[in-house]
Amino acid sequence: MTTHTFTPTRYYTTMCTTEPALVIADGDTVVTTCVDAGGYDAHKARITPPGNPMTGPFFVQGAEPGDTLAVDLVRITPNRRWGWGRAALAPNVVDPDFVPALPVDADGGRPRAEWDVDMDAGTAILTSPQTSLGHYAFALAPMLGCFGVAPAEGQAISTATSAEHGGNMDYRGFVEGVTAYFPVFAPGALFFLGDAHAQQGDGEMVGTGIEISCNVEFRVRVQKGRRIGWPRGENDTHIFTLGNARPLDQAVQHATTEMVRWLQSEYALDALGAQTLMGQTVRYELGNMFDPAYTFVCKMEKRLLEGLPRT
Amino acid sequence: MTTHTFTPTRYYTTMCTTEPALVIADGDTVVTTCVDAGGYDAHKARITPPGNPMTGPFFVQGAEPGDTLAVDLVRITPNRRWGWGRAALAPNVVDPDFVPALPVDADGGRPRAEWDVDMDAGTAILTSPQTSLGHYAFALAPMLGCFGVAPAEGQAISTATSAEHGGNMDYRGFVEGVTAYFPVFAPGALFFLGDAHAQQGDGEMVGTGIEISCNVEFRVRVQKGRRIGWPRGENDTHIFTLGNARPLDQAVQHATTEMVRWLQSEYALDALGAQTLMGQTVRYELGNMFDPAYTFVCKMEKRLLEGLPRT
Amino acid sequence: MTTHTFTPTRYYTTMCTTEPALVIADGDTVVTTCVDAGGYDAHKARITPPGNPMTGPFFVQGAEPGDTLAVDLVRITPNRRWGWGRAALAPNVVDPDFVPALPVDADGGRPRAEWDVDMDAGTAILTSPQTSLGHYAFALAPMLGCFGVAPAEGQAISTATSAEHGGNMDYRGFVEGVTAYFPVFAPGALFFLGDAHAQQGDGEMVGTGIEISCNVEFRVRVQKGRRIGWPRGENDTHIFTLGNARPLDQAVQHATTEMVRWLQSEYALDALGAQTLMGQTVRYELGNMFDPAYTFVCKMEKRLLEGLPRT
Amino acid sequence: MTTHTFTPTRYYTTMCTTEPALVIADGDTVVTTCVDAGGYDAHKARITPPGNPMTGPFFVQGAEPGDTLAVDLVRITPNRRWGWGRAALAPNVVDPDFVPALPVDADGGRPRAEWDVDMDAGTAILTSPQTSLGHYAFALAPMLGCFGVAPAEGQAISTATSAEHGGNMDYRGFVEGVTAYFPVFAPGALFFLGDAHAQQGDGEMVGTGIEISCNVEFRVRVQKGRRIGWPRGENDTHIFTLGNARPLDQAVQHATTEMVRWLQSEYALDALGAQTLMGQTVRYELGNMFDPAYTFVCKMEKRLLEGLPRT
Repeated sequence: MTTHTFTPTRYYTTMCTTEPALVIADGDTVVTTCVDAGGYDAHKARITPPGNPMTGPFFVQGAEPGDTLAVDLVRITPNRRWGWGRAALAPNVVDPDFVPALPVDADGGRPRAEWDVDMDAGTAILTSPQTSLGHYAFALAPMLGCFGVAPAEGQAISTATSAEHGGNMDYRGFVEGVTAYFPVFAPGALFFLGDAHAQQGDGEMVGTGIEISCNVEFRVRVQKGRRIGWPRGENDTHIFTLGNARPLDQAVQHATTEMVRWLQSEYALDALGAQTLMGQTVRYELGNMFDPAYTFVCKMEKRLLEGLPRT
Repeated sequence: MTTHTFTPTRYYTTMCTTEPALVIADGDTVVTTCVDAGGYDAHKARITPPGNPMTGPFFVQGAEPGDTLAVDLVRITPNRRWGWGRAALAPNVVDPDFVPALPVDADGGRPRAEWDVDMDAGTAILTSPQTSLGHYAFALAPMLGCFGVAPAEGQAISTATSAEHGGNMDYRGFVEGVTAYFPVFAPGALFFLGDAHAQQGDGEMVGTGIEISCNVEFRVRVQKGRRIGWPRGENDTHIFTLGNARPLDQAVQHATTEMVRWLQSEYALDALGAQTLMGQTVRYELGNMFDPAYTFVCKMEKRLLEGLPRT
Repeated sequence: MTTHTFTPTRYYTTMCTTEPALVIADGDTVVTTCVDAGGYDAHKARITPPGNPMTGPFFVQGAEPGDTLAVDLVRITPNRRWGWGRAALAPNVVDPDFVPALPVDADGGRPRAEWDVDMDAGTAILTSPQTSLGHYAFALAPMLGCFGVAPAEGQAISTATSAEHGGNMDYRGFVEGVTAYFPVFAPGALFFLGDAHAQQGDGEMVGTGIEISCNVEFRVRVQKGRRIGWPRGENDTHIFTLGNARPLDQAVQHATTEMVRWLQSEYALDALGAQTLMGQTVRYELGNMFDPAYTFVCKMEKRLLEGLPRT
Repeated sequence: MTTHTFTPTRYYTTMCTTEPALVIADGDTVVTTCVDAGGYDAHKARITPPGNPMTGPFFVQGAEPGDTLAVDLVRITPNRRWGWGRAALAPNVVDPDFVPALPVDADGGRPRAEWDVDMDAGTAILTSPQTSLGHYAFALAPMLGCFGVAPAEGQAISTATSAEHGGNMDYRGFVEGVTAYFPVFAPGALFFLGDAHAQQGDGEMVGTGIEISCNVEFRVRVQKGRRIGWPRGENDTHIFTLGNARPLDQAVQHATTEMVRWLQSEYALDALGAQTLMGQTVRYELGNMFDPAYTFVCKMEKRLLEGLPRT
């Protein structure tokens, strides 16, 4: 149960099977840092090319294909005051004939926004552009936008997107105190993380949260022989599953199917019980509708599952 | 400001321009009843064919195309103890290769469930089928699944589906205390309502909530010259817009575009302000992913809009 | 086997159950005219509001719900020289971030095009706008964009869209010599037709063909007890089925499922035979990707079905 | 202009930047072999794991990111008589509620089919399973299902799927005599090929064609500075573009946008001219609707582009 302090020296923009940055044991904790999505560090220096550069990978001893890697997000702390993002909705999230009405910057591109992130005050103050919002204060809720493990079959999947191995899910539910679960596809799992947001709206409809570099503390646990199909998570109140795909319909199908499997395999619910319960109590959240794969989240309240027999 | 007590004598399974059941004035309240989605009334008698039979239509004096009809949902009260629904997920909401694993009844159809709905206790107790859930108690949250106005251009749109005029949106947010807004397409708006659920999960993933007949009280208000494109709503904490379409992606586009228009037209936000705010604070909910048109809901917290200049 | 000459006096922009314009017998032929999608007649006069105004409905004696109405398209002849349409791709058929690059007219709308339609020469010469194409000659292939029967359950469905009853399918395969089949939902079937195109590309990607008024001759046949689920058709070389829905994926699913049913019910193929054959020989065409419901067409070559036992 | 005879010794199931199997020059021809999708060679021996194992990669001297690689498919010849595939439609291509009606084999899996492929006769005779088709003869039309170049940014993309770099497009139009064009993302382009089909239906709706190993001859040409966004191709009669994505709607958007760019950049058509022409004459084909990314093809007849000024 060691706590490692790790300072990254290189970053990855794919999740892949590659040389580990650090080998850690089941149960270990890591304290490390992540640059922001653009490769900027705590000092506003671009130290690596943009595109969700990842810290890692961490090789977790004992993790083998067919296992599950549990990752406890102990702490996610922005480590600078400058946050940036986009200030206009993405073209794919509005009606096609509304696209020409979206604001553009002087070069015809999507306008940028900047914030002053004050962890003590718990707010991010909009500093630009000049809009009718003025210096609006957004409440902080730091999260990890992109994290996961090496994908199956030697693939190297861009950190722009997501799939069964996790990746760029941009789900605002991945905050401190949450445990994320990933299917292990490669020996050691090879865990990557980065792309913190000081906060984000549902769906990441402008294509960013408030992008920020951060200090992160996480703990890993290997769940031998627990086979899962898609990323899962849990917090104090809910268990949840994530489907990553386009269109949203397919992301919903993945997340929903994964939840049924979970309820049937670990809560001793028969098919009819699991589905009757889901039908009347399930909750959904939109992770993102911007990345190449969209992310949809299927949630069940833990309270509703209490008292049910566990396997 | 009259309160009308109205007893329906016929029901409609399309929303259409037809003979009004009752003519009411701007500001009037109506106390009436709705049969359930299957045409069963408070006495468990099927008094009209199934398919979301509607009470109404109510002709609201002064409502003209180009106006908005506001409907305050004052009271939605189940008026019998018997609730029914489905007990298996719908084939379209799971992975296609998982469909053969969905439970079926003896005839190969989708299994039915029944509940004992106890308004005093605030619960619906599952009475059948026999599952690992036993006599599980679901918390009540009565809502209207299907309501809206006569659609544009003389269309008669089935109450199985939904569109700009409302219809079968099956959104669990339409509970007591909510105000719904509909674009008016026909003189008098011609308001229809029905398809109550004692409660429902997000997405109506089994194809039903806990289907129930009910007593309803609602009040109408005509908003002259307020042009909206899609149904909207508000409750104590949020304003929201609904997009009704397939696939979900398009429903999201409609709801999101409608919210931008709302913020820009009634909250005096410029495009960049409205979109920067939405990008970091917007919330989405899945109404239904079962009906011919799916329903997606875009929400903004009122608290976040306070202090902003209003038009 | 009467041939009726029918001159329309009113037009419909929904397909619905309404007063027949003419009652005809099984086997009868009708010679009539259709205005164009904008309501313009052979003399370029707008004689009815736009939106695919329909000629009809024709009540076919003996047609009952559960039957199929066969419609032989004997002749579709443009009856004027002026054709019009759109000159820019629709926003929904290009990448969302390409939408701002689509040409617009002086009012920000979608630019119009006009053609000189010469039936003798078999060409439509582009007369405006001025483009690098000059006076380009398009080969004529007159077709019906919108036709079908009254939909189920008293619905009145806009002629902007399509569904199981047919409607605005905008499939360029509906030319002279084709037989179309529609499921009958209302007594007499109530057949409507209109929206001719002098020719059209796959998908109607600009939102129009070369819009034209026309003379039409068609013959109806009632197929008692033949139950079909979606519009079907056949020409000299192929049988085909049409799925009308959004997104395209769902339209494909409808058309494909309808073709399997056809092969199994009328060609005496077992499921494995029908599907093995389809898997290696099926052809698809894109009807339209512009209307509220898209149309996808599943085709099988008749030659490949010859020699197979028929039921 | 060398002709290389290359015998593969290892195979890849991702397209990636890796050690070249052979370095060739601009203009060179390669004669080689491909195993089938399951890793079976000309002798029916499984010599490598399944999943569209690729021959290659071929490093083409002079090809740099920003160029285009042209690949002339000179010859695709099945090199054994045994062909195999699937005999039931895939669950995702039929209506969700039709899925339980799809045939399954004794283990509940998707049934297999086998063919006797006779290149002299030009036919593939169905040898199993036993169906109402009997020993049906399918006409041969050998094609490559999966080929392309190393993707951008160091990604290693599974040969189960496709993207901007090509990959598993399963388009039956990629036959002898066709030239395919790929955007170059890595130095040397790194060309991979495999997954031949003796023939295939539109859409690969059973998830396979008639899977076969083959001899292939191809020639490469580097088009310096020609920037394309998606795979393109041309044959004697048409030019075409391919969009690879889910859902089909998005694949259509990619292919359509790529065609507009092509017409505007290389045929000297202005936007209005290109789009007016496309609107009335474009053709579409469904490549596949089975793989993780679907493939849609946008085609323009060369004859219609003759006489237009070229850049």
